[in-house]
Parts: sequence; structure tokens; C-alpha cells
Amino acid sequence: ALPLALMAGPCALESRAHALETATALKEIADRLEIGLVYKSSFDKANRTSLSSARGLGLEEALPIFAEVRETTGLPVVTDVHEPDQCAAAAEAVDVLQIPAFLCRQTDLLIAAAKTGKAVNVKKGQFLAPWDMRHVVAKVVGAGNPNVLVTERGVSFGYNTLVSDMRALPILAETGAPVIFDATHSVQQPGGQGGTSGGERRFVPVLARAAVAVGVAGVFIETHQDPDAAPSDGPNMVPLRELEGLLEELLSFDRLAKARR
Amino acid sequence: ALPLALMAGPCALESRAHALETATALKEIADRLEIGLVYKSSFDKANRTSLSSARGLGLEEALPIFAEVRETTGLPVVTDVHEPDQCAAAAEAVDVLQIPAFLCRQTDLLIAAAKTGKAVNVKKGQFLAPWDMRHVVAKVVGAGNPNVLVTERGVSFGYNTLVSDMRALPILAETGAPVIFDATHSVQQPGGQGGTSGGERRFVPVLARAAVAVGVAGVFIETHQDPDAAPSDGPNMVPLRELEGLLEELLSFDRLAKARR
Amino acid sequence: ALPLALMAGPCALESRAHALETATALKEIADRLEIGLVYKSSFDKANRTSLSSARGLGLEEALPIFAEVRETTGLPVVTDVHEPDQCAAAAEAVDVLQIPAFLCRQTDLLIAAAKTGKAVNVKKGQFLAPWDMRHVVAKVVGAGNPNVLVTERGVSFGYNTLVSDMRALPILAETGAPVIFDATHSVQQPGGQGGTSGGERRFVPVLARAAVAVGVAGVFIETHQDPDAAPSDGPNMVPLRELEGLLEELLSFDRLAKARR
Amino acid sequence: ALPLALMAGPCALESRAHALETATALKEIADRLEIGLVYKSSFDKANRTSLSSARGLGLEEALPIFAEVRETTGLPVVTDVHEPDQCAAAAEAVDVLQIPAFLCRQTDLLIAAAKTGKAVNVKKGQFLAPWDMRHVVAKVVGAGNPNVLVTERGVSFGYNTLVSDMRALPILAETGAPVIFDATHSVQQPGGQGGTSGGERRFVPVLARAAVAVGVAGVFIETHQDPDAAPSDGPNMVPLRELEGLLEELLSFDRLAKARR
Repeated sequence: ALPLALMAGPCALESRAHALETATALKEIADRLEIGLVYKSSFDKANRTSLSSARGLGLEEALPIFAEVRETTGLPVVTDVHEPDQCAAAAEAVDVLQIPAFLCRQTDLLIAAAKTGKAVNVKKGQFLAPWDMRHVVAKVVGAGNPNVLVTERGVSFGYNTLVSDMRALPILAETGAPVIFDATHSVQQPGGQGGTSGGERRFVPVLARAAVAVGVAGVFIETHQDPDAAPSDGPNMVPLRELEGLLEELLSFDRLAKARR
Repeated sequence: ALPLALMAGPCALESRAHALETATALKEIADRLEIGLVYKSSFDKANRTSLSSARGLGLEEALPIFAEVRETTGLPVVTDVHEPDQCAAAAEAVDVLQIPAFLCRQTDLLIAAAKTGKAVNVKKGQFLAPWDMRHVVAKVVGAGNPNVLVTERGVSFGYNTLVSDMRALPILAETGAPVIFDATHSVQQPGGQGGTSGGERRFVPVLARAAVAVGVAGVFIETHQDPDAAPSDGPNMVPLRELEGLLEELLSFDRLAKARR
Repeated sequence: ALPLALMAGPCALESRAHALETATALKEIADRLEIGLVYKSSFDKANRTSLSSARGLGLEEALPIFAEVRETTGLPVVTDVHEPDQCAAAAEAVDVLQIPAFLCRQTDLLIAAAKTGKAVNVKKGQFLAPWDMRHVVAKVVGAGNPNVLVTERGVSFGYNTLVSDMRALPILAETGAPVIFDATHSVQQPGGQGGTSGGERRFVPVLARAAVAVGVAGVFIETHQDPDAAPSDGPNMVPLRELEGLLEELLSFDRLAKARR
Repeated sequence: ALPLALMAGPCALESRAHALETATALKEIADRLEIGLVYKSSFDKANRTSLSSARGLGLEEALPIFAEVRETTGLPVVTDVHEPDQCAAAAEAVDVLQIPAFLCRQTDLLIAAAKTGKAVNVKKGQFLAPWDMRHVVAKVVGAGNPNVLVTERGVSFGYNTLVSDMRALPILAETGAPVIFDATHSVQQPGGQGGTSGGERRFVPVLARAAVAVGVAGVFIETHQDPDAAPSDGPNMVPLRELEGLLEELLSFDRLAKARR
């Protein structure tokens, strides 16, 4: 198996300067650790808990920034798409199109993303059994694009809580797609703070370590230099200054997990 | 409180003839029982479990049929929309736009539906706590449309199963929006038949009776003259010939529930 | 089907005077409403969340009080047993032995209760699927006692929360045993107040009405003249002064539910 | 932190010969791997799904066998107790008394076990939030016995399914008690085979690896030379011939997990 890869970045694209700064900082970490890195950022938070929450820069303003991040840092970029007609445009500026968990069964979106020819990373819905992701993968592959990844990000467990079922990881791997563990959204407490979603950052390393020990192709970790001031997912994001230590730890577990196969 | 209303129809719009036939049959039942009826049918099953499942006629072909149903029977019509740019067109032919459960937090879709000025029926996501629907209602109302309904259709309970929490009904009512109980999708077993969703039709009257006794504005029941031959949701649909008996029963419970307030 | 029966009383046996007073008050209500009543009280709260919570009077002190309640009011009495060797003694003073939900699979306890010849009311475990109660019923019946009742009291739903699945009621009825709906513990939030269990009393009428509309043999409702001062389950108990109104309502739903069969 | 310990043995005590044979085989493995081993076996399966399932040899017949295992192999022994009055007798022959998950809140049983002075291993109930185990630990400690362990064995997730929440491990550790991960019962499907519980043995290494990577004091793994012929928990037990390989793997993860702290 290939060594652990990383999808990381701030949850939301905040500005050109912020994107370049975080991408550069992440690239330095990735270079030091020799870990493959895809830079992640969202141009639109399309399903915020409430209307008053910040949405983001929007597709038009974001795409040149993604292009600049790619060019300046050499990093591939992933961003999420919410409607079929965003896919072609986004595909011009990024390397991986991500399908949000709530939308993982929207056939038109999956097909539109697939038809761009870019890699497609589909997050498993909070309402979906892991074995049902094979139908999701088949929608992308059936549209002519074998380059699909699947991401585990927790499953509904009562109200305002998710749980990470580690059995899901080998089940998802049976689809043949590389499996990513999203350690950030797995610790989310959806709607758990009233008008916004809460979370418990302290469980990010716990769940990430468990997932890497089980065996995954990559981890997805949102990070921010000042999470508590971030426009979204602050309670779940890892402070940038703690990321390298966490990754070192995960890489040790990854080497061990993959040596044992 | 107003007497119980009914949203009913076949899950999918199968053909012009089938739509007119079922609408006429339902109108006769509704007239006999003096129950307010909104005819429901979907022009597109946009989130089927697998790619090989039937999708439906599509928006363009469906709209004239919805218009004809309205004209011929005098019934208001409800259909679900999946993308913001479908809302305006659908609003020309129907009276209520329905937001599917998976999409209940997609801000752009909610706003586009709201801006048509038509009533908007939002299904509560399988992943959403009932108290979090107030933010969803606020998105529609905040877009200038106070005419919003909310529908309970079960919440994720382990894998491939939903459970109907009857406490959700009064909590949803606190939003101020009329509350509909979807007795059809509440008995769904998502993905539970391998490549399609299963369900247990025998629990439709059980859950509907419970919800009406608790107190709801309306029930949503999909029906078909031959459910087991229907292109979608067959295991959950009530045979058309059994609908009138079920509704009579529900109306008795509704009168009792609303008399006691 | 027989008309709705009632199991009611304070959660814990607090004192002789309190038991006689509440039993007398409940008997007056039951006589006015012509509802069959079984007086419920616990001599020991054997599984409190924490050690510092009150336990109760104990078996020895309680049995003469139960006997006096029976004699004075003519009411049958139900109490819960926790260990096999309590069954025979308890059976001398009460009419129904109740098996707590956590203990519903303890074979020796079920058999010891069965062998007393008294009716046995088994609460379904918070961890048990409704169809698995058939094995529990078979343990009692297999020990020679066909006089068994089963009680629904909610199922685990995430942490510190229960949900009442109304589909469980007809499934439990398939065991052949009369089905009781425990409206008090179904609204419990286990451990939800730190060192004690919380609950939401306002949902007692909601769930009770739903269950009665679906169709049950009886309801179980704990009540207290001053619930917030009660030694246990205060947050879930119905104030005694509100009980009669609630029961009137439930009896109307029961008549309707049973007329429709 | 101390290196990983192991609780292992066949689920049920089948016979003197079988106990000595498995204990000897396990001791050889433990010696080769230098892992601390506690031999586990149950004298009574007191909460089987159905009455027709095998119960076990019983306390009286089992105690001399446990004593012989201890003497012959030098291994400490753990067995589960179900009623307060079994504790003193069991404590004469074993080193650790285990409280079954369904019984984890039975105060009298916890206190009786505590008062023996032996170590007490309490399994977390399938219905219990991890933070609520602090009250359980306090019951044992409050009875004068600080020698208490807690075991994670999955939490109810819908019907007939458990899920292992890896966040529970650090939360349980906050009680101060050593945390054991029960990899056998965590993969159980309670009642999932009709009259018996099912399970998926293939997930034992998956969950065990995850738990060890997160960090635990020990793992609990039931094993049998021919699991599919075992009287109970066969679907979850690891074949004895595969145990050593699994343990080697877990020990590597343990060394890594504990080095990083």
C-alpha cells in the first residue's frame, strides 16, 4: 500500500493572502515529513446550520486563487462542489472535486463531477451504511471516471452527535476506491451549538490514530492558525502549530499498519 | 387547529395517463372524506440508491402533466426540486415545492424555492435533530416567504434503518410551521435491499395513527394501485384500494386529537 | 381487546403514609374513570446512576406496606425485583413482579419470578430489539407461567437519550403477551443530569397518546404529588393533579383505537 | 504507561480438560510474547438470548477448575459474576471479578464484588455513555476497593448492532481506572441470528488495532481452538491458531502508542 496521504487546509477559503499563506505553511510541513499533500479549501459553505453564518468567497472569486495556490506551491487542490453546473468550472482550477456528505447520493452531481475527468472524492453521508457506498462509487465509475476516492466522516448517532465506526474503513476499501478518514468532521457535533455546529477538537488525534492503525490511504484534517477565530468548523480544526506533531505520529502508525500487511 | 390535510400520490410521475388516473381516484376519495388534498408526484428521483434505478420523466416533460392534473382535478400539486434553477420552472406548474430530506440544509435551494412565492415543504434530514429545523425554517422565512411547512420522515437509527421520534412533532411545531408526518418514507429501510431501499408497508398505519394522535397538520402518504410494480418506494407505498379506510381511521384520530386541545 | 389498563404510582416507596395516600388518591381517580389500576412502587432503586442516590426502604420494610395497600384499597400491586431470591418473598405481598429493563435477559431472575405463579411484567431492555423479546417471553412461559406482560420503555439512541419506536408495539404484541407502554421511563435521559438521570415530563402525554393510538393493553405512568421533590425519576413523573386529565384523554384514544379493529 | 495486557480464554468454561488445555496454550503464547495474561472463562452464561442456549458448568463445579488453572499455569483468572452472593465464593478461586455489561449499574453486585478485595472489571453497558462510567467506578471505590478496571465493549447502534466509539477510551481513562478494550463482544450482533447472538469475527483485529493505537491498558479477546463449535459467542471468537499473530501486531501498535506519550 502507498504511504499515507494528507488532505489539509482551512475549512473555508477566507482570502487570497490567507490561502497562499496556509498553503505555503502546509507545503513546508509536507516537504519535511515527505507526505503527499492535497490543499483543501471551500469556496462556499452551502449548507451552514443557519442563514446568518458566513458562506465564503464564491466560485468566481475562488477559482483564480485556487489556480494561484497550485501554481505557487505546486500542490494539488481539492474543493467541494454543490451543484452539477459548478463542476466544469471548478475542474479548471482544482485537481480533486469533493462531493459533500449530504449530497453523496445526488446522481446528477456525481455524474457531472465524474465527467470532468478530475478525481472525485465522495464523502459518505451521515445517514449511509458503509456498504451502500459501493452504489455511490458505481455512479462515478459508471460515468466513465475510475478515479474516485471515498471519505468516512462519521455516522448519525442520536441527535447532534456522530460516531466513527472503524469497521467502515475496510468495508469502504472493498469498493476498490482509496479510503480517506476525515478526522475533522468526524468530531463535529452537528447543530450542537444552537445556530452553529460544535465539535471536540481533542478527539481529532484519537480518531485519526485509530483510523490510520486500521489502515487508510489518507487523512483529511482541517487546520487553521487560529481555529477559534475561523469562520466555520473552528471547534473541530487543529491549530496549525500542532499539525506537524500530529502528522509525525500518524505517519509512524501508518508505516506500522502497512508493514504488517 | 385545522382538520388533517393529506399529501398523496404515487412516488414517481410515471406517465400522463397514470398521473391523471391516480389524481382523479385520489380526488374522489378526498371529496368523500372531505379532506384537503395536495397531489404529490416526483418528476425526478435524483438520489436513487444506484445508477441503474429509474429516474423519472424529467422536469420538462412533467410540468405540462402537473398543469393538466391541476386543471382537470382542481387539486393543488406538490413536487420536489433538487437544484436552485429548477425552482422557478416548477413553480409555474405546481403549488408547493418540496425540499428533499438530504437537501434540507442546502441554503441556495431553500432560498430559490422561497423566492418563487409558492409554499415550501421542507423534509427534515435523516441526520437532523428536530430542534435544528428552526434554522431551516428561518432560511425560507428570511428569504421573504412565510409559507413554509416542515415534514418529519424519520431519523437515522443504526444502519439501513430509520426511527420515528414522536417527540419531534411538537418540537417541529414550535417553529410555527405546519407539521406534516410522512408515513411512507418513515418506514423506509434506506439501502436495505442491496441496490434499492426497502421498507415495511405494514407500519404505515401504525406510525400515521401515532403521529395524528400526537397532533399534526397533515399526513404524507404515497400510494399506488400496484405498489410492488412501482418504479420506486414500492415497499413503502399503500395500495390505493386501502387508502380510504386508512384515512377514515386517521380522520377519527385527528378529530379526537384536535378536540382535546 | 380489553379497555386500557393503568400501572401507576410513585417511582419509589417513600413511606407507609405516602404509599397509602397515593394509592387512595389513585384509586379514586381509577374508580371515577373506570380504568383498571395496578399500584406500582419500588422498594429498592437497585441501579441508580450514582452511589449517593437514595435506594429505598428495602424489601423487608416494604412488603407489609404493599400488603396494607392491597388490603386497604383493594388494588393489585406491582413492584420490581432485582435478584432471584427476592421473588418468592415479594410474591407474598404483590400481584405482579416486574423485571427491570437492564435485567430482562437474566435467565435466573426471569425463571424465579415465573415460578412464583404471579404475573410477570418484563420491561424491554434499552439495548434490545423488539423482536428479541419473544425469547424473553419464552423464558417465562417455559418456566410454566403463561401470565407474562411486556413493557416498552424506549431504546438507546446515541448517548443519554432514548427514543420510542412505535413499531415496537405491534411487534411486541406478536409475542402474545399484553403490551404496556411505559410513558415515564421512555422520556428519561439516562445519566443526563450528571449524577442522576434527567427527563422531559412534557413528552409523557405525547408518547402516551401515540402508543395508545397504536394500541396497547395498558400504560405505565409514574406520578407524584410533587415530582420535583421526589427521590427518583422526578423529571419524568406526572404531577398527580394532572393525571386524571391525561387519563381521560388516553381513554378516548383507547376507545377509538380498539373500536377500529 | 505499562505495556499492553491481555485477558483471554474461551467464552465459556466447557470442561476441566478444555480449561487446562486452553490455559496452557495461552500461557505459552503469552510467555513467548512477554505479555501479561489473565485467563478468562465464564462458569455461567446467565443472560443468553434464549432459554434453550447452553448455560455452563455452574459456580460450584467451576471453582475447583479455576483454582487448578491458577495452580497449574500460574495465571491469574477472571470470571464474571451475576449476583451479589456469588462474589465471595468466586473470589476464593479467581483474581478478578468481572461485572457483565447489562449489570454495570446494579449497585449491590458492584459493592459485593468490591468487598471481596479482588480486582473488579466492570464492562460498560451497551446503554451507557462513557462519561457515566465514573459513577460506576465510584460505586466500587466507594465500597473501599480502588482496584477497578473498566472495559469498553460497544454501545447500542440501532437494533442488533453495536458500534465502538473510540472516543470512549480516553473518556473512560479519565476515571483513573485502567481501560480494557473487549474486541470480542464489540463485534457482537446482539440477537442477530434469531435465537442467538451473531457477530463478525473479521472485525476483531480491526477494532483491536484501533483501540490499541488510541491507547489502552489491555485487550480482552475470547479465543477457541474451534470457534464455530463453541457453545457461545462462536461468531466473535478468534481461532486460537490466529491469536499469536494478532497479538504480535497489537503489541507493535501498543509500543508505538505508548512511546509517543
